Amino acid sequence: MSDLPASTAAGQRGPADHSIRDQIIAAADEHFSRYGYGKTTVADLAKAIGFSKAYIYKFFESKQAIGEAICSKCLASVTTDVRNALTESKSATEKLRRLLNTIAVSTTEIAFNDQKIYEIAAYSCAENWPSSVNYVDEMAEIVTSIVLEGRASGEFERKTPIDEAVRATMLVFQPFMNPAMLQYNLDAVPEGANEVASLVLRSLAP
Amino acid sequence: MSDLPASTAAGQRGPADHSIRDQIIAAADEHFSRYGYGKTTVADLAKAIGFSKAYIYKFFESKQAIGEAICSKCLASVTTDVRNALTESKSATEKLRRLLNTIAVSTTEIAFNDQKIYEIAAYSCAENWPSSVNYVDEMAEIVTSIVLEGRASGEFERKTPIDEAVRATMLVFQPFMNPAMLQYNLDAVPEGANEVASLVLRSLAP
Repeated sequence: MSDLPASTAAGQRGPADHSIRDQIIAAADEHFSRYGYGKTTVADLAKAIGFSKAYIYKFFESKQAIGEAICSKCLASVTTDVRNALTESKSATEKLRRLLNTIAVSTTEIAFNDQKIYEIAAYSCAENWPSSVNYVDEMAEIVTSIVLEGRASGEFERKTPIDEAVRATMLVFQPFMNPAMLQYNLDAVPEGANEVASLVLRSLAP
Repeated sequence: MSDLPASTAAGQRGPADHSIRDQIIAAADEHFSRYGYGKTTVADLAKAIGFSKAYIYKFFESKQAIGEAICSKCLASVTTDVRNALTESKSATEKLRRLLNTIAVSTTEIAFNDQKIYEIAAYSCAENWPSSVNYVDEMAEIVTSIVLEGRASGEFERKTPIDEAVRATMLVFQPFMNPAMLQYNLDAVPEGANEVASLVLRSLAP
């Protein structure tokens, strides 16, 4: 199977929808949750599923690639929570506030309920793994669409270049969005995140 | 000397102005800079100065107390740079901008020129050592005085409760102020810090 084209996800190999891939990810999720990323080897995962290490390497080029898959899944759950929260919001103002609140609360829940997976996400963000870069890019796109919507509706000012407004907003959201930083701000959720959203909304006022 | 009153600095013992204390701090600074905090023992420091470990423990109750002293010195250099930068600023607007720029640039210089000392500062901020808590408190005081000055001069709005405005500003300054977070933003200095200062100034506009 090693002559199959690499899938688009970082470090993944073989057909994207193969059920073996899901089995490996499920086993990794369980092992990483229990023992942590650092202490789990590809051999441990192979043993848990009953395959050889070599067979696992047909689907993932390294342990990091498996970590990436877990991390993408974890960060995608935050993005899904954000998208769901936004469908219920009527104004751009409300959307921006809900965006940051949902990111902060949803990520904090991972920190408390699934500490070892959170550690992978924090490590991924600290090391700029593709999974976390994609996550940040997706959030920046959502922020851009909210700012544009607020500019169109007259809720937000239009003088600041849109790129700068979004870049600066993403920077000040970092302490609640980047798991590597949020770990120092868990006590400030949700009040601190709410106050930061208010500050950003004041900065966007016409 | 062990019956002397403890000095006010965390974990320091004996008379505050004793030259032995300075010798220990100087030796620790050199050792930590070269080998890192984790790899330096109190025995290494004792050997470097030619004293016994027991004698060093008459001045510092633990290695962390020595780390605290180094960290305080390092963070105090940033505070001094900020205070100097502010004396040249005429308006509250200019002061706020210079404050964040100076923090970001000055802390980034430590990261590049004295990496191992920076690691102690980052660790101190991550672990809320008194040295870093004092540093943040001092910066919050400076931010408060700038916001009050800007409110008095009519540069800044007065509707937001002052405590909230300062708290939120301190939160959004974190990615450039907290060494544990700045390490992920070194590439964004000084432009990103400048854009964050602009965002905060827009939020403070009347």
